[in-house]
Amino acid sequence: MNFKKNLSLLVLFLSVSAFAQIDKMEPPFWYAGMHNPELQIMFYGKNIAQYEASVSNNVVIKNVVKTENPNYIFITIDTKNTPASDFVFSFKNKNKVAFTKKYTLKARRPNSAQRKSFDSSDMIYLIMPDRFANGDPNNDTDKSLNEKANRNAPGGRHGGDIEGIIKHLDYLEELGVTALWSTPLCEDNDKTHSYHTYGQSDVYRIDPRYGTNEDYARLSAELKKRNMKLIKDYVTNHWGAEHWMYKDLPTYDWVHQFPGFSQSNYRMTTQFDTNASAIDAKNCMDGWFVPSMPDLNQSNPLVLNYLIQNAIWWIEYADLDGFRVDTYSYNDKVGIAKWTKAITDQYPYFNIVGEVWMHDQAQMSYWQKDSPISAIQSYNSYLPSVMDFTLHDAFGSVFNEDKASWNDGMIKVYDNFANDFLYANTNNLLTFVENHDTGRFNQIYKNDFKKYQMAMALIATVRGIPQTYYGSEIGMAGDKGKGDADIRQDFPGGWNGDKNNAFTKSGRTEEQNKFFDFTSKLFQWRKNKTVIHTGKMTHYIPEDNIYVYFRYDDKETVMVVINNTVETKTFKTKRFQENIKNFTSGKDILTGKSIDIKNEIFLDGKSVLILELN
Amino acid sequence: MNFKKNLSLLVLFLSVSAFAQIDKMEPPFWYAGMHNPELQIMFYGKNIAQYEASVSNNVVIKNVVKTENPNYIFITIDTKNTPASDFVFSFKNKNKVAFTKKYTLKARRPNSAQRKSFDSSDMIYLIMPDRFANGDPNNDTDKSLNEKANRNAPGGRHGGDIEGIIKHLDYLEELGVTALWSTPLCEDNDKTHSYHTYGQSDVYRIDPRYGTNEDYARLSAELKKRNMKLIKDYVTNHWGAEHWMYKDLPTYDWVHQFPGFSQSNYRMTTQFDTNASAIDAKNCMDGWFVPSMPDLNQSNPLVLNYLIQNAIWWIEYADLDGFRVDTYSYNDKVGIAKWTKAITDQYPYFNIVGEVWMHDQAQMSYWQKDSPISAIQSYNSYLPSVMDFTLHDAFGSVFNEDKASWNDGMIKVYDNFANDFLYANTNNLLTFVENHDTGRFNQIYKNDFKKYQMAMALIATVRGIPQTYYGSEIGMAGDKGKGDADIRQDFPGGWNGDKNNAFTKSGRTEEQNKFFDFTSKLFQWRKNKTVIHTGKMTHYIPEDNIYVYFRYDDKETVMVVINNTVETKTFKTKRFQENIKNFTSGKDILTGKSIDIKNEIFLDGKSVLILELN
Repeated sequence: MNFKKNLSLLVLFLSVSAFAQIDKMEPPFWYAGMHNPELQIMFYGKNIAQYEASVSNNVVIKNVVKTENPNYIFITIDTKNTPASDFVFSFKNKNKVAFTKKYTLKARRPNSAQRKSFDSSDMIYLIMPDRFANGDPNNDTDKSLNEKANRNAPGGRHGGDIEGIIKHLDYLEELGVTALWSTPLCEDNDKTHSYHTYGQSDVYRIDPRYGTNEDYARLSAELKKRNMKLIKDYVTNHWGAEHWMYKDLPTYDWVHQFPGFSQSNYRMTTQFDTNASAIDAKNCMDGWFVPSMPDLNQSNPLVLNYLIQNAIWWIEYADLDGFRVDTYSYNDKVGIAKWTKAITDQYPYFNIVGEVWMHDQAQMSYWQKDSPISAIQSYNSYLPSVMDFTLHDAFGSVFNEDKASWNDGMIKVYDNFANDFLYANTNNLLTFVENHDTGRFNQIYKNDFKKYQMAMALIATVRGIPQTYYGSEIGMAGDKGKGDADIRQDFPGGWNGDKNNAFTKSGRTEEQNKFFDFTSKLFQWRKNKTVIHTGKMTHYIPEDNIYVYFRYDDKETVMVVINNTVETKTFKTKRFQENIKNFTSGKDILTGKSIDIKNEIFLDGKSVLILELN
Repeated sequence: MNFKKNLSLLVLFLSVSAFAQIDKMEPPFWYAGMHNPELQIMFYGKNIAQYEASVSNNVVIKNVVKTENPNYIFITIDTKNTPASDFVFSFKNKNKVAFTKKYTLKARRPNSAQRKSFDSSDMIYLIMPDRFANGDPNNDTDKSLNEKANRNAPGGRHGGDIEGIIKHLDYLEELGVTALWSTPLCEDNDKTHSYHTYGQSDVYRIDPRYGTNEDYARLSAELKKRNMKLIKDYVTNHWGAEHWMYKDLPTYDWVHQFPGFSQSNYRMTTQFDTNASAIDAKNCMDGWFVPSMPDLNQSNPLVLNYLIQNAIWWIEYADLDGFRVDTYSYNDKVGIAKWTKAITDQYPYFNIVGEVWMHDQAQMSYWQKDSPISAIQSYNSYLPSVMDFTLHDAFGSVFNEDKASWNDGMIKVYDNFANDFLYANTNNLLTFVENHDTGRFNQIYKNDFKKYQMAMALIATVRGIPQTYYGSEIGMAGDKGKGDADIRQDFPGGWNGDKNNAFTKSGRTEEQNKFFDFTSKLFQWRKNKTVIHTGKMTHYIPEDNIYVYFRYDDKETVMVVINNTVETKTFKTKRFQENIKNFTSGKDILTGKSIDIKNEIFLDGKSVLILELN
């Protein structure tokens, strides 16, 4: 026995008996009376697995899981008969209590389980919080976190925060949006580009540069005061490489491990392709999205449960109204369905929209709950909502297609809706002109106001849940070709000293007011139009690049006409008799004018009419 | 009473009592022992509806239908207890038999109802008979028909005929094709362009310029001697405007009538689009394909029954092995499903492939029997087979895409098969590089032999029933941009005096022999490869524009490698381990060489390997 070996043993002894303590306990607290009474609490501390745990107040421990990493212990308790209260976990060594930890079950809000969520009556506003408004310049940099504020760096942290959002809720209300989807706000300790915050390092903590957990809960409460909803951007597929657990993995298979780094092939068709090779499917699902984002292994029940509980914790804690789930179709499809079902079992009216960035309606439908397409393979993702990416595909070029051909012009939009029958629920499709990952509409169309009007009128009147992207309502552009930062520029007026303050009418330029006033009028009109939220749709094959469709229910009929040519057009209305019925005129909701529709309709080139028929 | 009126009455009297006779009786004969014992015989003659019909031999008349046109009478008899025999219809006027007509029930071939059909073991050869070979120059022009032969006119009748096909069956056998699909052969009395023969004027009669009904039956028999199959091109959607019945319609609604001419909008999505307007859907289905083709109204039971019986008559008469149905998805979808079901109820193993020229797998799947897609709408077309038009779409450009990108290169082909799960039966998809309505492959790819090899190898080895188009096997080109006639040029050697006779090895040019020898080797190899006919498929995401897939069953594994780059490539085989298993080498079926696959495979740019693993 040599000296070095003795020293090692001593270190081991000390670490086991004397220095063990709890560094993390997750979820940090929980709620009494949940649908699923089982709660798996993770305790993290040096060699904590070497202790025996017990709990006070007659709480029943159902299961204790220790892994190959002695620093973790997962204790499942049954909360069924435990009211909102505190109780204590004791950790014993050789029958002596070495240390204890208090745990709290809080009371839920009334009707928490029956909470309503976002739906087709909403207009969602998407923001990147680092780029919207800097409400608290004091938190721009946090000493404990790697990346410091630098507004001069396009991909740096600019200082936008939760306080900035709260301060501008009146602006959002004036605009007429009814729900807020912010990209992720939990801690992201990446050394660079942490502003996008999809590589999170602690999913129980709001990034201090955005504010505190309490600030986030306050944002939710402030929104509710205005009848607005909060949608959290949840990332199940991956964490950031700076995540504290990744640095000390509970199990080797907590993330998908490969010899060396394996990037996803991004070919999501392998999720259902019956001809796909197993290796390609594995690579798609298990490969990492980017090298800095370890891919979570939801087939490990500990991981899955961690993600389910974390999601539910945020719903309860911040009184959430919905989730947007990042890279939904890259997840292990069995695991993500369990995650989604666990949440919607708990909250039957909770809406979750998944990012399924595919280009074929059957493939997108596959991911929606009760899809007739996934039923082919006896699969059900339980995801209530998917994004209408094929409609977005059409938006990429359609308004520049002045001349119609068999495939070009408004037929592209018509064709998207022609496949609606493939979906389980078209009212629960998220429709959008752009988002934080795509080209900006006003860039693609060179700030052409008429084209902006056509696009926004479209998503505001077709089936589904429309979503708009911050800044577009004042004509903001940005070139995806120059990199993501360019489509995520700071909202003018969000920073002290900004010369242009687009948050107020007087601060906006004339051009910005033109965009804002139109958008606001459209969104405000849509708010209470149940015929748009849930009415039926009938559309007509575009003739001469003019697209006509109707939304209608027992009470009301709205006729939408989009002239995608550059010429002024007059067309006969007889063809639309099955929807026009006995109506003889329509009120144009944008101008307020009454328009005779008995024989003909006349409209300018590149223009849209939204007519309430009467 | 004036003279004119008296004359009219006289004419009426004469026509009723003295001149009535039977000009047409259809079906002209029938078969005993059919699955459906009901037979509706149409008698056509001046004012025939004014007679009372009866029938001899205790045959039961179940129903007599007279229409608004007195020249028709439809008599339904029950043939259940009637053996193959002759019996007589008598037509009485005022209890006196005015005239009689003999009808014959013939004996069916043994196992006629259980006849086999074309399937994925076949290689189908598509010809336009007017353009393949002129076996009988005496029938090029028929005095009774409008269009006379004129080989100098690209869109004229060139004289090809059934005899020409029969004379070259040895050529087809040598080529290795196993089934023949000829475009329609029934009488088409259009004044111009009747060579394509989709505007038929008598669907019970082979056009005399192609031969006789007996010639057609002889073609079928000659094919059977060689174990080859005959597929009839059936047109349910429309007839030609010169059809004798169109000139004296049995009922006004025998065809779809509009005020003026209404052309189809060709938007077949209206057949299932839940948002579609009724007028658009009606226009698609009921609008005429072209002004010279009256659109048949299959919702009229007389029309539907006429088409069903005509189809069955040809199966029995010419001992057919399958149908190809023109413009399937333009038909009234309820009517065409009844037509298809009536035939497949009668012949449960009979294959029918429909032309469903759409560009989305879900939409194409919709039309296939037992489709999970059409099940969404509780619709079943009963059509066993559809054409893989999305694969064809990829062929339009893929082999010119030397560089791969996210969407370009072999991924286009891979992506087609990624949606196979949407189909009820992928083995019963018709795969093709081109047909008589599309651009010719050798034109698009400028007779690039390597690209031809890649394309043909592909359709010869993937799932489905491959179909090739006459002349491509000798490198024939033709420019769709110049009009349809250019893609339907005469096969060299089919006409007396043709300088180039591509039907024989010695008559073919060196270039033609290069194409033919490759094609023949490939097709002959495929004939008995059950692993290709019915084996499973696994494919791998193309890397570096190289597409690798496997066909395999319990007995055999075939590996196909297509290098779509222009460079010579070497790639590791380890990635394909799940299919390569313990195989160490493969026999290249095109060169006969054995290739080591243990570590790497090497192949030339723009080339294909088809390896039987061992």
